[in-house]
Amino acid sequence: MQASSQPSTCRAAVFHRAGQPLALETFPRPSLLAGEALVRIRLCTICGSDLHTLKGLRIEPTPSILAHEVVGEIVELAEPVPQDVEGQPLEVGDRVTWSVCVSCFDCDRCRSGMPQKCRHLVKYGHSVAAGREALSGGLAESILLRRGTTIARLPAELPDEVASPINCATSTIAAAYRMAGDVSDQRVLIFGAGMLGLTAVAMGKESGAKQVTICDVDPQRLELAKRFGATDTIAVDSIGSLDGPFDVILECSGSPDAIETACRIGDVGARVILVGSVMESRPVQLDPTNIVRKWMSIVGVHNYAPVDLRRAIDFISRCHHKYPFAELVARTFDLSEANAAIEFSIQHRPIRVAVRPRAVHPRPQTP
Amino acid sequence: MQASSQPSTCRAAVFHRAGQPLALETFPRPSLLAGEALVRIRLCTICGSDLHTLKGLRIEPTPSILAHEVVGEIVELAEPVPQDVEGQPLEVGDRVTWSVCVSCFDCDRCRSGMPQKCRHLVKYGHSVAAGREALSGGLAESILLRRGTTIARLPAELPDEVASPINCATSTIAAAYRMAGDVSDQRVLIFGAGMLGLTAVAMGKESGAKQVTICDVDPQRLELAKRFGATDTIAVDSIGSLDGPFDVILECSGSPDAIETACRIGDVGARVILVGSVMESRPVQLDPTNIVRKWMSIVGVHNYAPVDLRRAIDFISRCHHKYPFAELVARTFDLSEANAAIEFSIQHRPIRVAVRPRAVHPRPQTP
Repeated sequence: MQASSQPSTCRAAVFHRAGQPLALETFPRPSLLAGEALVRIRLCTICGSDLHTLKGLRIEPTPSILAHEVVGEIVELAEPVPQDVEGQPLEVGDRVTWSVCVSCFDCDRCRSGMPQKCRHLVKYGHSVAAGREALSGGLAESILLRRGTTIARLPAELPDEVASPINCATSTIAAAYRMAGDVSDQRVLIFGAGMLGLTAVAMGKESGAKQVTICDVDPQRLELAKRFGATDTIAVDSIGSLDGPFDVILECSGSPDAIETACRIGDVGARVILVGSVMESRPVQLDPTNIVRKWMSIVGVHNYAPVDLRRAIDFISRCHHKYPFAELVARTFDLSEANAAIEFSIQHRPIRVAVRPRAVHPRPQTP
Repeated sequence: MQASSQPSTCRAAVFHRAGQPLALETFPRPSLLAGEALVRIRLCTICGSDLHTLKGLRIEPTPSILAHEVVGEIVELAEPVPQDVEGQPLEVGDRVTWSVCVSCFDCDRCRSGMPQKCRHLVKYGHSVAAGREALSGGLAESILLRRGTTIARLPAELPDEVASPINCATSTIAAAYRMAGDVSDQRVLIFGAGMLGLTAVAMGKESGAKQVTICDVDPQRLELAKRFGATDTIAVDSIGSLDGPFDVILECSGSPDAIETACRIGDVGARVILVGSVMESRPVQLDPTNIVRKWMSIVGVHNYAPVDLRRAIDFISRCHHKYPFAELVARTFDLSEANAAIEFSIQHRPIRVAVRPRAVHPRPQTP
C-alpha cells in the first residue's frame, strides 16, 4: 500500500434529482481493496451528458456524483499496484486520467474486444454514490478508481483544462475514427460543433483528411470550428445545399435529420459513424438500396476501449498547441460553486465549464 | 494469340424488353484485343436478378444478353495472356469462372480497395449487346472476357451446376462474411432462403458459427436450409417471437421488415449485413440510439472484390459434397429453350434452372 498524507473525509456535490440543486456532502475516505487507487481531483469539466441528467432528459440512478471528465493525482494505491495503460506500475503523485468505463476484462464482450460494453460495466459519474464505492464521480474532492479502470499518466505540460475532456469526448472521437478507418485524403463531414465535433474536426485534419466540413446550428460554433481546422462550414438551414459526397461522416449532434442526410450524401464506400444519438429520438428513415448499392457502413459508437484513451492522450499531447483546446473551458468554479457552474453552463452554453476543488489539505506542487 | 478451332459465329438469346420472349440471334465471333479471352459457355444458371429484369422490375440497358452465373472453357486468348486470380497465366482449354464485374483497377475506387465499385465498372449480363463486345452475357454459346476481368480456374471435380453460381451468390456471400468479420462461435441469423441465404447458411456453419438461424416465408425452403446446416428455422409469421440476440445478421431477402427486425434484435456489437436490398423498397425505420448504444454496424454489400471470388471457389471446392448444392439446379435446358427455362423458373420458383448450350461444334472431353 502506497499513500500520501490525506484527510479522512472528502466532500462531493451530490445529485439527488433533476431540477434540484446538488448538495455538498461529506464522505469518509474509503479503505482501498486490491488494485484500487484513490485520486485527488485536480479538475473536472462538465459534459453535455451531465447537463442532460441534471435537466432530467436522461435517467440515472441516484444519489450520484456526476461528471466523468476528470484529471487527478494519485494519493493512495493498494497492492497489487495497478498499471497504467502502457503497462507501467502507477505511483502516488502521478497526474492521471482514466477511462470512463470500468470493465472486467473477463466476460465474453471484454474477451471479444468490446470492453466498452462489458457485462459488468461501471461508468464513473453514472453510479449510485453509496457504500465503500460512493466516490465515483468528478464533482468531488476525491474519486476511488476501481480495479479494471484503464488509467493513463498525463504529460506534465498538458494543462488540466485541456486534459480533462480527454477521457470523454477525445476518446470517443478516437473510437469513432478507429471505426471509420483511414481518412487520409478523404472528405470528412461532421455534424455538431460541440466538444465532440470540434475534436473530430481537429483529429480529422491531423489524420490527413483533405476536406473537413462541419455543420451546426450555431454560427459562433462554426467560426470556432474553423480554428480547429474545418475547411468548410455549413449552417443547418442550408443542409439541403450540401452537395457532398463524403467518405466519412461523423454524426455528433444526435439529430435524426443529420443521420438521414448523412446516409443520403455519403459516397460509395462511405462510413457513417453515429456518436451523438444517446437520447431517445424519432426513428430515422433510410433507403436500404442506397446503403447496399453504395456499399455504405453505418456504425454506432458508444463508450470506448483502452486503445482509444491512449490515442486520445497521444493526439491531445501532440496537437493541443495547434488548436484552441485551451480556450474551450469558459470559466472555472470551486466545488462549493458546483450549482453556479451548472447554471452558467446551461445559461451561456459554453463548450465547457470546469470545477476545480479548492485545496483544503496540503497539496503538492502542480507539475 | 492462342486459339482452338471454333466456329465463326455464335448464338445468343437476346433480351429486348420486359414481357417479350428472348430472341435467338447470331453474332460474329469477335476479334480479341490485348488481354482478352473468348470463352465457350458450358453452362449458365439463371439468377433472381435476371428474372427481375425479365419481369421489368429492374431496368437494364437493351438489347442485352442476360445471365452472369457461368462456367465456360477458354477457346482463345490474346497476348498479353490474362492471368488467373492466383497470378498464373491462363491457357486455352481451361475451365473457368470469372467475376461478374470488370474493373479498371486504376481509378480512385479500385485503388482504395473497392474494385467492385470501379468508376468504369462493366457487369456481365447487364450490358448492351452491341458491337465488338456484344457477347457479354451467359445466355449464349460464347462470351468475351474483357481485360480487367478476374478469371479463376475451376477444380476438375466440381460439376458445372455446382460451380455456376460461384461468381454471383457464393462470391457475394463471401463478401458479406468478409464485412461481418469473424463469426466463429457466434450466433448468425439469415433472412431469405434463396441461393444467397442457403449459401450463407453453409458458409456460416463452415466458418464456425455456433448457431445459424434462417428465416423465410417458404416452409420448403426452410426444410432445405436445414440440409445446408441451419440449426434453427423461423417462419416469417413468427418473426415476432424471434428472441435473439444475434451477433451477425445477413439480410438476403430485400425485405424492409427484415432489416428493421435485424436492427432491433442484433446484440451488442452486432454486424447487420445488407445484401438483398437491390430493388426499390419503402424506407426502413431504425432507432438510432439502439445502433449507438449497441455499437452495431449496418453494412451494405453489392458486387464483390476478387478476393471474394477466390474465397467462394475455395469454399465450394471444400464443401460442395457436405451440402446439397448439386440439387439446387432443378432442370437444365438448351440455349434454344431459354424462354422455356425462364418460364419454368418463374412458374416453379426452384432455387436455380440452368441453360447448357448444346454442342454445335466439336467439343473437347469434359474434365
